[in-house]
Amino acid sequence: MTFANVGTIDVQPGHRDDVVAILSRHNPQLAAAGCLSYEVGVDDEQPDTVFVAELWTSREAHDDSLQLESVKEAIAEAMPMLTGDMGGHRFEVAGSPLRD
Amino acid sequence: MTFANVGTIDVQPGHRDDVVAILSRHNPQLAAAGCLSYEVGVDDEQPDTVFVAELWTSREAHDDSLQLESVKEAIAEAMPMLTGDMGGHRFEVAGSPLRD
Repeated sequence: MTFANVGTIDVQPGHRDDVVAILSRHNPQLAAAGCLSYEVGVDDEQPDTVFVAELWTSREAHDDSLQLESVKEAIAEAMPMLTGDMGGHRFEVAGSPLRD
Repeated sequence: MTFANVGTIDVQPGHRDDVVAILSRHNPQLAAAGCLSYEVGVDDEQPDTVFVAELWTSREAHDDSLQLESVKEAIAEAMPMLTGDMGGHRFEVAGSPLRD
């Protein structure tokens, strides 16, 4: 079942764009691991927050991807710039008005 | 700039699947209005919440879509089953690790 992970990642002041750059860095392993969509974004009204919206072929695919070396490296690189506060939601996709 | 709208919609107990059905009903007007992705989902740990994750060609396209008759009708149909509590985040997409 398609799985969605949407989240907020609070960053140290001034480091938002650094974290966006790390999370947006092209990683061909993700698609192979079952990542269907992975958008990284910002909202100028929340200058110290990075947003992610991800779709995966399954919850397991998402969770397994966190063991990929490339993903662990990106997280380790970003970690010093994070405050540790994260939020968001995870859900199983049940349908879409874009699909018949 | 691609715009993301991710949200939670709290529903009256027992009406989650009714609201999912309304929001997932095929609506060809959305793609024409700039909707790139629109996923409706559930999390069994939160039985009275419906989740949405949407991508649009722009914030304006998203906001304009709320004036479509088909969208207004769907909202009106779902409204009696909602508690009124909604949450979520809106952001501008800055990049993706799936894209070079």
